Amino acid sequence: MPLCTIGVDVGGTNIKLGLVAPSGKIIAKTNLITKSYVHHPRQLINALVVAVRSLVRENGKTIKDIAGIGIGLPGQINSPQGIVIFLPNVPGWRNVPLRKIIQKQLKIPVFMDNDVNLIALGEWKLGAGKGYQNLVCITLGTGVGGGLILDGVLYRGEGFVAGEIGHMPLNEHGPACNCGGRGCFERYVGNRTLMAKAAKVFGKKNIRLEETFALASRGNVRAVRFWRETATHIGNALVGVINLLNPRMIIIGGGVAGNYKFMEKTIQKVVRNRAMTVQNAMVRIVRARLGDEAGILGAHILVKESIFGR
Amino acid sequence: MPLCTIGVDVGGTNIKLGLVAPSGKIIAKTNLITKSYVHHPRQLINALVVAVRSLVRENGKTIKDIAGIGIGLPGQINSPQGIVIFLPNVPGWRNVPLRKIIQKQLKIPVFMDNDVNLIALGEWKLGAGKGYQNLVCITLGTGVGGGLILDGVLYRGEGFVAGEIGHMPLNEHGPACNCGGRGCFERYVGNRTLMAKAAKVFGKKNIRLEETFALASRGNVRAVRFWRETATHIGNALVGVINLLNPRMIIIGGGVAGNYKFMEKTIQKVVRNRAMTVQNAMVRIVRARLGDEAGILGAHILVKESIFGR
Repeated sequence: MPLCTIGVDVGGTNIKLGLVAPSGKIIAKTNLITKSYVHHPRQLINALVVAVRSLVRENGKTIKDIAGIGIGLPGQINSPQGIVIFLPNVPGWRNVPLRKIIQKQLKIPVFMDNDVNLIALGEWKLGAGKGYQNLVCITLGTGVGGGLILDGVLYRGEGFVAGEIGHMPLNEHGPACNCGGRGCFERYVGNRTLMAKAAKVFGKKNIRLEETFALASRGNVRAVRFWRETATHIGNALVGVINLLNPRMIIIGGGVAGNYKFMEKTIQKVVRNRAMTVQNAMVRIVRARLGDEAGILGAHILVKESIFGR
Repeated sequence: MPLCTIGVDVGGTNIKLGLVAPSGKIIAKTNLITKSYVHHPRQLINALVVAVRSLVRENGKTIKDIAGIGIGLPGQINSPQGIVIFLPNVPGWRNVPLRKIIQKQLKIPVFMDNDVNLIALGEWKLGAGKGYQNLVCITLGTGVGGGLILDGVLYRGEGFVAGEIGHMPLNEHGPACNCGGRGCFERYVGNRTLMAKAAKVFGKKNIRLEETFALASRGNVRAVRFWRETATHIGNALVGVINLLNPRMIIIGGGVAGNYKFMEKTIQKVVRNRAMTVQNAMVRIVRARLGDEAGILGAHILVKESIFGR
């Protein structure tokens, strides 16, 4: 009988766990609230181990039915060695040998990677990018991230932090960014910027982006313009990535991509107008397919490929 | 006895050929003037074949002493199949099966790639990038190009046109570029722009960039500022590449790099101030080492690795 995997997606808000069948179907899911476990990495790790055991047991399996655990984390992860180097938004996580700790407790193989890298891996093998060799997956949310599949391999970079599309500058004299840069792409389309801009445009403090989606779908002129401007920035950022990497596909995911239908035309138009001819002719820009489950499914793929090869 | 190679670097002005020893030492060189052979690809190919034969014979070798020929060309090259898909600046070159034609005539293996890819390969194996796994080589000239070595492999992209660093936008509303884009990096630091700007700054039509180097070295305030501004644009472009690709090294080559000493401090400062922490900590920015011979040496490496493996 082929073995299942456990996919774990550690986010700033939730920790999602999924029991995944060999086919890539998620059999069962469970959730932890991240902020309940931020006092010490040990706390979070123990909760994770307990949750994995429950998830397995409650679904009529034993730990021996599990090929391995894959974990995506929001930060700098030494994937080959299984070490969390640094999580910027979860206190205390510096140089945590997460693989060793969990393997010792659960006695099954553990693999890990940056969360956006796993989303890219998931979309590549099970989602919008099936069958392609060169693709870029971008996630639009509070942060704007990216995962790079180049020549059929996930490219991690020298220090495991490649893919920071959100911090490619769009303008040399643009607004200052938390990262220390100026005019970063994220400063134009990250959720914080969009919410601040929406509050101004619609004259309503704390307006939610979902409301502006709804307004746009009813043809509200300001909402349509708001999303068209956002899409123009996205298109301009993609031009740089497309000219540099000559990918076959760009996959757009994350919260803001929920509104992709209002942005699609503009994004495509900007790229068609501005990207180089050859790059342009071969790149497809599509919406992510796996939604919230991309992280879990990417973790599943990581386990599968690490154990059974590509 | 280990075999030599022939490295060929086809440029818009000259075609450089070198007979290269297995060690990577260039034993002898020769040159053709490109514009004498632009009426038909056949013309250029025939001249190339004649030049290869002479170069071999005049150095006391026979064609049997040559392991293979490597050729760099300025355009879109299907390297695995040995086909020149398109050369934008040499008329008539569309879908030319160059490998097949030359192999038929010379009866030795022929390999080819984009010229900037071969410069990157040369600098990686024999120049500034020795021993690294992730590096970006940029060439500053009339065109601004780039070659990407990622995870120890030359990355060519889906359609063999990856690396167009010169066409990553620096500003969303920047000046229009020949490529169809706006605010492309090349529009700020390509030779044409620099010469036009220099003519204005120094009030002297047709001023050569070398003159402005000389002025800068004598402390001329306008010249120093001119190169500092150029270096700032270069730094800003590198920030995007560094954040996205997390390379271990950036190698700066090409004509404008002849003036690297006046730009180095500023480039380093901009990157130190603006690139992300982890990326910043591990990237070295250095000048190319192989100068004019990088193309020939890269072609040599291409032959060596294609025949004998990495």
